[in-house]
Amino acid sequence: MKTRDRIIHAALALFNDRGEPNVTTNHIAADLAISPGNLYYHFRNKEQIIHSIFDLYATDLQVSFQPRNEAETTESLLSYLDAVFLLMWRYRFFYANLPDILRRDPELQLKYLEAQAQLRSNIAILMQSLKEGGLVDIDDEDLKTLAETLLMVASSWISYQTTQVAGAKITPTVIYKGVIQILNIVRPLATPLGCERVEALKQYYEQQEQQAKR
Amino acid sequence: MKTRDRIIHAALALFNDRGEPNVTTNHIAADLAISPGNLYYHFRNKEQIIHSIFDLYATDLQVSFQPRNEAETTESLLSYLDAVFLLMWRYRFFYANLPDILRRDPELQLKYLEAQAQLRSNIAILMQSLKEGGLVDIDDEDLKTLAETLLMVASSWISYQTTQVAGAKITPTVIYKGVIQILNIVRPLATPLGCERVEALKQYYEQQEQQAKR
Repeated sequence: MKTRDRIIHAALALFNDRGEPNVTTNHIAADLAISPGNLYYHFRNKEQIIHSIFDLYATDLQVSFQPRNEAETTESLLSYLDAVFLLMWRYRFFYANLPDILRRDPELQLKYLEAQAQLRSNIAILMQSLKEGGLVDIDDEDLKTLAETLLMVASSWISYQTTQVAGAKITPTVIYKGVIQILNIVRPLATPLGCERVEALKQYYEQQEQQAKR
Repeated sequence: MKTRDRIIHAALALFNDRGEPNVTTNHIAADLAISPGNLYYHFRNKEQIIHSIFDLYATDLQVSFQPRNEAETTESLLSYLDAVFLLMWRYRFFYANLPDILRRDPELQLKYLEAQAQLRSNIAILMQSLKEGGLVDIDDEDLKTLAETLLMVASSWISYQTTQVAGAKITPTVIYKGVIQILNIVRPLATPLGCERVEALKQYYEQQEQQAKR
């Protein structure tokens, strides 16, 4: 791997593990056993590293959330939810500190808003196809609210959970609970067929959550 | 007003206006035209002032969210939602920076968790009485999810909204939108009678939002 990529991946791991505010560029250089000068050759400062991590995130987002034209099946729903889980887990430092990171970097905020607009539109397309597939039964205004609520719950989950427990550590269990909360929000709006699908997905993620606890 | 109370109220106004991270104890003393020494006579540091503001918040919370024994009427729902709005507005600096403020002060985190537990139980009682009054029609598990979603949306709204617009300022409009989002989340779970009530409340808050924009 090139030094530049090694820096990005080491920084991501350290941010996730210790929290972004607690990690300096010196920590990252020490972790890779390279000189701070070598790190500064590739990145001017920490913000630039965070920018590059965000580009990874945006690519992941684009690959994972391609809305499909065909009717939604349980398998495609599962792959969406797995993607939500993986994104939250891989970039958990970002979700934990979002308002702060964006406030410090207006250019990153613009990139983030573009990514959110794309995600908002993809969730709307997914919801529409669930409706056309007879899995949820609500009018268009409620569909819009549901899409906005799901986007907000997914974006805020990690940050909110850290406020709910003293000294909270972000574990896979915390994130599986978020996926289950998303399914619980959809459940009362689902048709009987949709409910069956939701219950099957819930069982799957409850098992994942149990295994993650061990 | 006693100096101690003047300090608390001036700090709250400055935190709300400029954002808590941008306000020091020196700014607060200057705003009141008192010496930093006089301020330090009353409060050892900024954390202690935030603690005292939190005590105001907890009292407001207790007074505004007393669950009632009688069946819920539109008036009592309106008074709950008005209380949500007022709390979010009065203590907006706190909601904007919650994970950060709590991380810095484990004692405050414990106080916050007590307040959240009280609020969670009050929302559950309110939801139960809406169900008994024939305004919402869902099973007990969905009622629990709904209560948790509403608590999360109310707690995360301001912080989330600041990530959605570049250089976002927290205005009354932002908070009215949060109250309307809460009503929109309840709407598809309401009975026909409940829907009528929700629509009436939505109209009221949409008018408030329009007036706040001027």
